Amino acid sequence: MNKKPSITEATTIAQSRLFSIEKVNLLFSNGEQHEYERIVAPGSGAVMIIPVLKSSTVIMIREYSVGTDRYELVFPKGLIHQSESITEAANREIMEEIGLASKKLNHIDSMTIAPGYLSFTTHIVLAEDLYEKHLDGDEPEQLEIIECDLTMFNELINHPELTEARSKAALYMARDILLK
Amino acid sequence: MNKKPSITEATTIAQSRLFSIEKVNLLFSNGEQHEYERIVAPGSGAVMIIPVLKSSTVIMIREYSVGTDRYELVFPKGLIHQSESITEAANREIMEEIGLASKKLNHIDSMTIAPGYLSFTTHIVLAEDLYEKHLDGDEPEQLEIIECDLTMFNELINHPELTEARSKAALYMARDILLK
Repeated sequence: MNKKPSITEATTIAQSRLFSIEKVNLLFSNGEQHEYERIVAPGSGAVMIIPVLKSSTVIMIREYSVGTDRYELVFPKGLIHQSESITEAANREIMEEIGLASKKLNHIDSMTIAPGYLSFTTHIVLAEDLYEKHLDGDEPEQLEIIECDLTMFNELINHPELTEARSKAALYMARDILLK
Repeated sequence: MNKKPSITEATTIAQSRLFSIEKVNLLFSNGEQHEYERIVAPGSGAVMIIPVLKSSTVIMIREYSVGTDRYELVFPKGLIHQSESITEAANREIMEEIGLASKKLNHIDSMTIAPGYLSFTTHIVLAEDLYEKHLDGDEPEQLEIIECDLTMFNELINHPELTEARSKAALYMARDILLK
């Protein structure tokens, strides 16, 4: 096994309100030195929630995403606020985004999205025993709520608006857990 | 269905060698105006390759990732060079990273990683009929090559060094295709 390289220098070279870009100098155990760039995102990471409506139906949302400039079919998600636990953040996000709360929240996985240049972590939470409860969020428009039948899995996983790797991986997890 | 918002202004507010951060003003169809930030990454996207060694064995690599500052278990991947097709880039990357080329390359999916603030797309390529062929790449140290047995799927998908959402989703896809 390789021995972990050491960071010999890390400097912020560009900064916006949300993101900063760092230049990082690395010294590998074989003596190689390399310079990389990485993006530092704010906060304590994010939660992504798989809301389970009934045994084989989960809820996704259709949300405009400015990175790709199109609507994307994704699971509800959002940043964890200071002082919130992972499951508290998950419950708040589904109250805000789909008007439902959960009596049974399970943190089932944690994922990175681009470990080569982002430290960002997203925690996946399975939310069961749902009941109606709405909280006002910061959504600029009403989100479209899509009930997804896991028994139609192939149609779902290949839906042209479902491109996001975290949501795809979470959908496979939901199938493994719920259709077992 | 919601009508797509329009981008009324997009300005580069921070820039490094690899990334630029844009401030984007959006006008939603309900009249709401919002300001967002997004990161524009260079080039034509990336490829991620699932190299199939034999019917139920795929190859992953253990690679140091500066975003998370640790080793990650991932599928081989890299940026698509100008004038390369998706499958040409995939074949070059596996020659560079694992010393194998493929006679049967299939582009099976395309994923985004954070559509809310990144436009970046990764194309997933299944590479079969492998043979030995090495190309020099730009790796700072020898990558560790890990043969992964898909019949041990639960151990694999829950491996603590496997955190990346694209690699997780690709591993589920590999199981669906190869263990069918």
